[in-house]
Amino acid sequence: MRVSELSRESGISIPTIKYYLREGLLPPGEQMAPRQGDYSRDHLRRLRLIRALVDVGGLSLKQVGKILWAIDDDRLPVNQLFGIAHHALGPPPDQEEPPADVARARGEVDQFLQRLGWRVSPQAPSRRALAEALVTLRRMGREVDTEVFERYAAIADDLAAWEVATVPAAGSRAEAVEQVVIGTVAFETALVALRRLAQEHHSTRRFTDEA
Amino acid sequence: MRVSELSRESGISIPTIKYYLREGLLPPGEQMAPRQGDYSRDHLRRLRLIRALVDVGGLSLKQVGKILWAIDDDRLPVNQLFGIAHHALGPPPDQEEPPADVARARGEVDQFLQRLGWRVSPQAPSRRALAEALVTLRRMGREVDTEVFERYAAIADDLAAWEVATVPAAGSRAEAVEQVVIGTVAFETALVALRRLAQEHHSTRRFTDEA
Repeated sequence: MRVSELSRESGISIPTIKYYLREGLLPPGEQMAPRQGDYSRDHLRRLRLIRALVDVGGLSLKQVGKILWAIDDDRLPVNQLFGIAHHALGPPPDQEEPPADVARARGEVDQFLQRLGWRVSPQAPSRRALAEALVTLRRMGREVDTEVFERYAAIADDLAAWEVATVPAAGSRAEAVEQVVIGTVAFETALVALRRLAQEHHSTRRFTDEA
Repeated sequence: MRVSELSRESGISIPTIKYYLREGLLPPGEQMAPRQGDYSRDHLRRLRLIRALVDVGGLSLKQVGKILWAIDDDRLPVNQLFGIAHHALGPPPDQEEPPADVARARGEVDQFLQRLGWRVSPQAPSRRALAEALVTLRRMGREVDTEVFERYAAIADDLAAWEVATVPAAGSRAEAVEQVVIGTVAFETALVALRRLAQEHHSTRRFTDEA
């Protein structure tokens, strides 16, 4: 298909598509004539993945590029791919030395994960995110340690075991990783939204009945 | 305490504190002499809340202002306060007409929540977030309906029931809302981080053992 059709099918403007082509996020179409490429369903799929990562995942195009690069590198084993995708989705590494309370919380999180027996990369950005949550609670005056997260860890463990077991056996490796990345972003959004809605529901019940 | 001490205690620079004072996010200190205010523990607490909302919650100062305004408005009943805090934390309303697939997904989400029997404001921004997750999955070629979220809804329901039941009976209404807002932001961050870590753990187990 031509770029105009690709734009119509994807709902993404031609200038944006051309920008992605220039940045190497989208591979060039097959050259039919000078300045006229032929695009396939794979291009359409790739465009949709980019938009999902940007719109729902809130990723920068630089982060998106890292994920796409990993998907396209056939030498990477699939389990490393998941790690790369997760790392790209996480917060960026420190630009400067973290404050003392943050550094301490990270050590506690590492110990917590060790106690749980989870096999997780030492560089996983979610370790930092978890430490940040702990620091936030403490700075607001709650005297808590990592045990405050135990119930959440148990829920996450059950959920992830089920999710990983039910990852559909997709055709290509690109499809497998796409499913995992989209699954991470979409179901995470859903889980957070549903928790807030359920909190509103239970708060309404508790505080309206009390009032 | 003086503004210099407030800065030292909170780790927030004096220019930033002065900016919050000008913007009305932080109430003025008691006037001791011209251009010299006296600040209390309440100011420190308020500063920490602002930073937590900005740093961990990712809120804009405008959104923070809405929450603070609600906390400080004594006429608002507590259950409405929770709603306001949640709404400020959610995605902003549409600037333009949503695409057809988004509009359809929102209708499905409304029906889904009705089936669940949850009492949730029709304007809750998390309704839109949930519809967005559904649309993302569909745009990536998964033929799914809201039932794909059923397991997540059940988990969210259990979790929120426990969370709301265990909200500590805080002293003042400001404290109660602060605890809820910080709890929403911090435990949400923790839940998302733990799910990703657990996914990495279970993926490693599944795909390393398969390899």
